[in-house]
Amino acid sequence: MEINHPETHAEVSAAFARYEQALVTNDVAVLDELFWDSPHTIRYGAGENLYGSAEIQAFRAARPSTGLARELDRTVITTYGRDFATANTLFHRNGKVGRQSQSWARLPGLGWRVVAAHVSMLA
Amino acid sequence: MEINHPETHAEVSAAFARYEQALVTNDVAVLDELFWDSPHTIRYGAGENLYGSAEIQAFRAARPSTGLARELDRTVITTYGRDFATANTLFHRNGKVGRQSQSWARLPGLGWRVVAAHVSMLA
Repeated sequence: MEINHPETHAEVSAAFARYEQALVTNDVAVLDELFWDSPHTIRYGAGENLYGSAEIQAFRAARPSTGLARELDRTVITTYGRDFATANTLFHRNGKVGRQSQSWARLPGLGWRVVAAHVSMLA
Repeated sequence: MEINHPETHAEVSAAFARYEQALVTNDVAVLDELFWDSPHTIRYGAGENLYGSAEIQAFRAARPSTGLARELDRTVITTYGRDFATANTLFHRNGKVGRQSQSWARLPGLGWRVVAAHVSMLA
């Protein structure tokens, strides 16, 4: 299993950047697109535990669309083989430090999708 | 890519259970064994951001060894192909709700290892 195969790493980095841009601009269509549309998908957020893409999409639709700007720090993307990756980053928003972890899979016919994510503020 | 191939799912479930048992009994040797021994490994904990297995192992060694019991809830393990999996679970400890997310990879010559993890208490 090749770790950080350059082309694979570049693909995931581009998807990660696209997700980040969608997050800070509240582009819900892209956010929904990049999370796997499946009952298997899980997102633990700062204040909610979402199981399945239906719950995740409902959360996105109800989310406030302002105050989303943030600065990333210590971002690390690591790829495992050609079809799986992890993306971990700290972020700074309103003087607080958060952490975002994502697992990405390259799904046949779909491309790279977040299959699990966890966001929390540092205690 | 087969999702939840039965043998693969059983393997990861066994590794997950072994990790949980080691966690609640503070079996540091097993905890260290099951996290990939690599500078790529990341663990965001309830109160710390650890980059690389050296930081993770130092945290384990310094961790209090009592009060670790917890009850798992809504545990979901999903496998992607034969070599990658996510494991997400809620846990209850001392009246609080926590969330634990792990990405597991089957690494050549090693077997299943946690390559990224995120633990947080629900806000």
